[in-house]
Amino acid sequence: SVNPDLASERQTASFSVEKLTALLDGGAEQTRIRRAVVEAIESDPVFSRENQYFQTQNERYEAAVRKAVHLQKKMHEMGWTENGPEYKYIYRALSGDVAFLLHRVFMRSISVLGSDKQIAKWIPLATQHKLIGSYAQTELGHGTYLQGLETTAVFDTATQEFILNTPKISAMKWWPGDMGRSATHTVVFAQLYVHGKCYGIHPFIVQIRSLQDHSLCPGITAGDIGPKMNFEHIDNGYLLLKNVHIPRENMLSKFCEVRPDGTYVRQGSQKINYFTMTTVRISLISDEVLTPLMKACTIAIRYSVVRRQSKLKPGEQEAKILDYQTQQEKLLPQLAAAYAFHFINDYLQELFNRGYREIQRKNFDMLPELHALSSGFKAVITQHCTAGVEICLRACGGHGYSLLSGLPSLYTKILASCIYEGENTVLLLQTARFLIKCFMAASAGQPVPPSVTYLAAVKNGKCPAKNKLDFLSPDIYTEAYQHVAVRLTSSTAAKLQDLIQSGVKKHDAWNQCTVQLVQAAKAHCHYIAVKNFAETVEKLETKAGIQKIMKHLCDLFALHGIFSNTGAFLHDGYTSAAQMDMVTASYLDLLAVIRKDAVPLVDAFDFTDKSLNSALGSYDGQVYPRLYEWAQKSPTNQMSPAYERYLKPLLHNTLSKL
Amino acid sequence: SVNPDLASERQTASFSVEKLTALLDGGAEQTRIRRAVVEAIESDPVFSRENQYFQTQNERYEAAVRKAVHLQKKMHEMGWTENGPEYKYIYRALSGDVAFLLHRVFMRSISVLGSDKQIAKWIPLATQHKLIGSYAQTELGHGTYLQGLETTAVFDTATQEFILNTPKISAMKWWPGDMGRSATHTVVFAQLYVHGKCYGIHPFIVQIRSLQDHSLCPGITAGDIGPKMNFEHIDNGYLLLKNVHIPRENMLSKFCEVRPDGTYVRQGSQKINYFTMTTVRISLISDEVLTPLMKACTIAIRYSVVRRQSKLKPGEQEAKILDYQTQQEKLLPQLAAAYAFHFINDYLQELFNRGYREIQRKNFDMLPELHALSSGFKAVITQHCTAGVEICLRACGGHGYSLLSGLPSLYTKILASCIYEGENTVLLLQTARFLIKCFMAASAGQPVPPSVTYLAAVKNGKCPAKNKLDFLSPDIYTEAYQHVAVRLTSSTAAKLQDLIQSGVKKHDAWNQCTVQLVQAAKAHCHYIAVKNFAETVEKLETKAGIQKIMKHLCDLFALHGIFSNTGAFLHDGYTSAAQMDMVTASYLDLLAVIRKDAVPLVDAFDFTDKSLNSALGSYDGQVYPRLYEWAQKSPTNQMSPAYERYLKPLLHNTLSKL
Repeated sequence: SVNPDLASERQTASFSVEKLTALLDGGAEQTRIRRAVVEAIESDPVFSRENQYFQTQNERYEAAVRKAVHLQKKMHEMGWTENGPEYKYIYRALSGDVAFLLHRVFMRSISVLGSDKQIAKWIPLATQHKLIGSYAQTELGHGTYLQGLETTAVFDTATQEFILNTPKISAMKWWPGDMGRSATHTVVFAQLYVHGKCYGIHPFIVQIRSLQDHSLCPGITAGDIGPKMNFEHIDNGYLLLKNVHIPRENMLSKFCEVRPDGTYVRQGSQKINYFTMTTVRISLISDEVLTPLMKACTIAIRYSVVRRQSKLKPGEQEAKILDYQTQQEKLLPQLAAAYAFHFINDYLQELFNRGYREIQRKNFDMLPELHALSSGFKAVITQHCTAGVEICLRACGGHGYSLLSGLPSLYTKILASCIYEGENTVLLLQTARFLIKCFMAASAGQPVPPSVTYLAAVKNGKCPAKNKLDFLSPDIYTEAYQHVAVRLTSSTAAKLQDLIQSGVKKHDAWNQCTVQLVQAAKAHCHYIAVKNFAETVEKLETKAGIQKIMKHLCDLFALHGIFSNTGAFLHDGYTSAAQMDMVTASYLDLLAVIRKDAVPLVDAFDFTDKSLNSALGSYDGQVYPRLYEWAQKSPTNQMSPAYERYLKPLLHNTLSKL
Repeated sequence: SVNPDLASERQTASFSVEKLTALLDGGAEQTRIRRAVVEAIESDPVFSRENQYFQTQNERYEAAVRKAVHLQKKMHEMGWTENGPEYKYIYRALSGDVAFLLHRVFMRSISVLGSDKQIAKWIPLATQHKLIGSYAQTELGHGTYLQGLETTAVFDTATQEFILNTPKISAMKWWPGDMGRSATHTVVFAQLYVHGKCYGIHPFIVQIRSLQDHSLCPGITAGDIGPKMNFEHIDNGYLLLKNVHIPRENMLSKFCEVRPDGTYVRQGSQKINYFTMTTVRISLISDEVLTPLMKACTIAIRYSVVRRQSKLKPGEQEAKILDYQTQQEKLLPQLAAAYAFHFINDYLQELFNRGYREIQRKNFDMLPELHALSSGFKAVITQHCTAGVEICLRACGGHGYSLLSGLPSLYTKILASCIYEGENTVLLLQTARFLIKCFMAASAGQPVPPSVTYLAAVKNGKCPAKNKLDFLSPDIYTEAYQHVAVRLTSSTAAKLQDLIQSGVKKHDAWNQCTVQLVQAAKAHCHYIAVKNFAETVEKLETKAGIQKIMKHLCDLFALHGIFSNTGAFLHDGYTSAAQMDMVTASYLDLLAVIRKDAVPLVDAFDFTDKSLNSALGSYDGQVYPRLYEWAQKSPTNQMSPAYERYLKPLLHNTLSKL
């Protein structure tokens, strides 16, 4: 039975939840396929996450390996294939709690970087799981800056082998997933030396564990790097190489080859590889970043209509906490952001598919823009969504702090997305570099890629809004965002120029502008996200009920961004103080409007109770009985030796005799 | 041996680290006492935290109990007493990892709320640990709003007993520390009923476990609420009461008593009790909030001079990451905040001591102001410091995400401080209510407490700064902060008035202003913190070297607040856009200045390696060897059954036969 406080929220939905779900899925047929996958996975006890919050790191790892192995069987049973329509829903249905994800990265590396011969040899072995692969790039002392990697691979013409070494402790491979305990092979990135000359970073296939008994191979030291904030189920590992010999054929050689006599040959273009990095950043957004935020919104919003606290009106029942403006102001902007980023993700996917088609036709023109967009949006979305999950957690008070709410594990996991696949500040500076370059080009009348043509059209006007309703016009707020993005880019470009002209060296000048460059990159992405949301809403004209609520969310997303960052809009007077008061008024009004549909809007994300795994967020809203039921299962409710050892002597007053 | 990259940072300190440490401690003698306590605790193997990051919740609990019991012995051995000068350093030296903290709250409750007779009976029992106490206030469905508690205590004149019940599941006691597994007694807050009439919330001493064998008493259901983000060492518990009979004498009766015939008598003033709540909020700031931020700054800043990444100048060695402006902009404002809040904590402590003296003289005039300040600063400092620790964690990239860095546990623990002892938003609204009241009074020419007299002096001037150096003048920025605080309070008061005059009911009008009221309360506290820091710096005139660096930190704290919140200062034109550019320039300049002293500034916090318990933050900066050494000890490097069970069959290709 559904908690009546939650049930009542669903009776007044202004739109069809089922239709919105289909829109989010990309069609009703996709919804059907997704639900079938979820049903198949969740009904299988091997994939259960029931005791997840009570498990140790060791238990989590073992469960993840068990699930990964069972998944092979399951896919076979269900007739799911890696190219089938079900595939993309499997990982989401497992909530990511599965091992051997790096095995796929291992295979992708070989497919992209390997020669035809290498692909023919290794891919079938990997596909049949005759080996377990990993991907060893990051080192203890080296992350984002790949050129700094210190592992060496020296070619020995006599034996036709590469000899790999970890020259010092900072060069140990550190973090690779699946490597600490599972992998038998890994792709090692190392500085290639031939005849004493360094040719830079290259990838090598290295066997690290015996295929017979899993013991470490000669010269290999490897293990698990220990506890982390999350990802307990993954055996992130370390790897130390001491005179490890591998055959010449194990250097991945699609683009570079070392001939038997030691001749180094570079062939083909590595640009496609560069493109791979950018697509990884986009591909992680959906499952690793948006899903956690959508889950957190679902949990926090359902809880906020079940939890009652204090009286809003004297003499009445205690109020649902979602009726408080401050609670709305915490949660509803996160909900709007989840929708905004869902739509920008669609946009980026589409753009990258187009880019991929161009690249296959050997046209690499789109690469710089794609790199800038993928870097910027990876950073902005992970940052925004991580903050959003944290807000949801805190908004549930004490119960949000319990692991049983599901929120702590969502938070500790999404937090990692700000760091992996490119640290966010580094990525934003990549975007900024592109913006500055394009701004200079545009100022000089040269053509620039589509997403930045707006930089050329610097207008010095004023925001034309006359009353608070004007700020519900996408034209008004989109233009305000555009203005800010142009201003931040142009002013930072000017500062950079001034510094250089005043004699500061180029790299120093760049460093002195980086705080502001980061702001410019964020403003650029924020502008594109707002514009894209507004355009998406416009295209929903055939779906009246949904268009209306999406319009409200779009407005909220845009106005929340202005309200939270008023200085950027006020700075040069584009927006006046009076207009800012209108923004505030419209923004606060919107909270009360969207609050009415808050539960249907999270219901549309269509998470099952099992996938939420939250005592606060279930569909039926039975928060308190579930918290009690789950707590009773905790291992901390088993008898503790602490009583006999410490408490009994204390209480029986033997303390003085100690 | 100290890592040379770290050692070089210490050679150029612009001030005496030892003298700054003494200043922070409140004198060299205090430093000496603190170090002696730390040394005694850290040299005792029973208090070791060596394996903390590898332990399960059960192991953490058992260790905390062991330490709590051992502490009694240690105090006796060392001659430390609860009233001695060493006492306040013990908890900090243990890094909080100790059980029975609620036992002290239990005792304080009885001391404050109990009659002389009750104190005479219970306090000696508790002091001698003949019982273990807890404090059961919060319920599953009720937190901050105490009047909403549902547990009942019905007086039965026939038996002269109170009969306690948990009428429904939302009334279960939930969260009390030390109650899940340890406590034998607890103070239960329940609605008192006599002859069918409800007299509201009252405290009752209830025995929950046998003193003989620790079994639950009749009518009691109790246990542990399970895993949380942190506080694994504490057995936060649940408690369900079913017709639990306790004698009439167990209602704490300093202020209210039920006579044998059921007559309810209220006596004395409860105001002192109200004062107790406010002092708890202040007392937690130092150990629970400032210490974690100071530790996080120490770890992140030391790591940032050891870690090198990318080249700042072409052809040179990779740069220390603290040399990047973006890294400085992440960490140095947190360092400045740690100092700012240390000094405001001194100010609040002093104010509360004065308040306590007044209250002892039956003068309660200071109470509203103390309540507003304690609520507001509890919220602002916990929020700011929690965000600061998260920034430090993220600024260390992947290694920050490892538990071995110490940062995740600092973060997950400090986060709770935003929720406990009053949820922050609720507290800020209490401060705001005080501000609005005082603003109205001041506008009507009535006297107001000292901390808010500035609200009366509304000036409509402009910021007089003419160049970026002017923004290094405390008068300039303090006045800017004051202006913003006044503007936000007065404009929200006006909005509230307008709404009420337009016919909106008072409570609705209040709710519609709460987002802005929260802003006003924050601005008020921020202003006081800046003003206090500036005044503290001024008083350091006898300590030239220290005064200079503290002045830089004060400037940074103030300018960072403006830079991060430009809209508030630009809004009504008090600060112009040109002035805001000066703020930005001065702010960025300061980063480079303070960066030089960053390591000495964290060294002055004087944390031992054991108390930091961080592979990244040790005094010697041997980051990589220590990470490797610690990782090897992780239980995840023991043999896993996963190989035999899952990997071996998979690799030996029995999958197809499954």
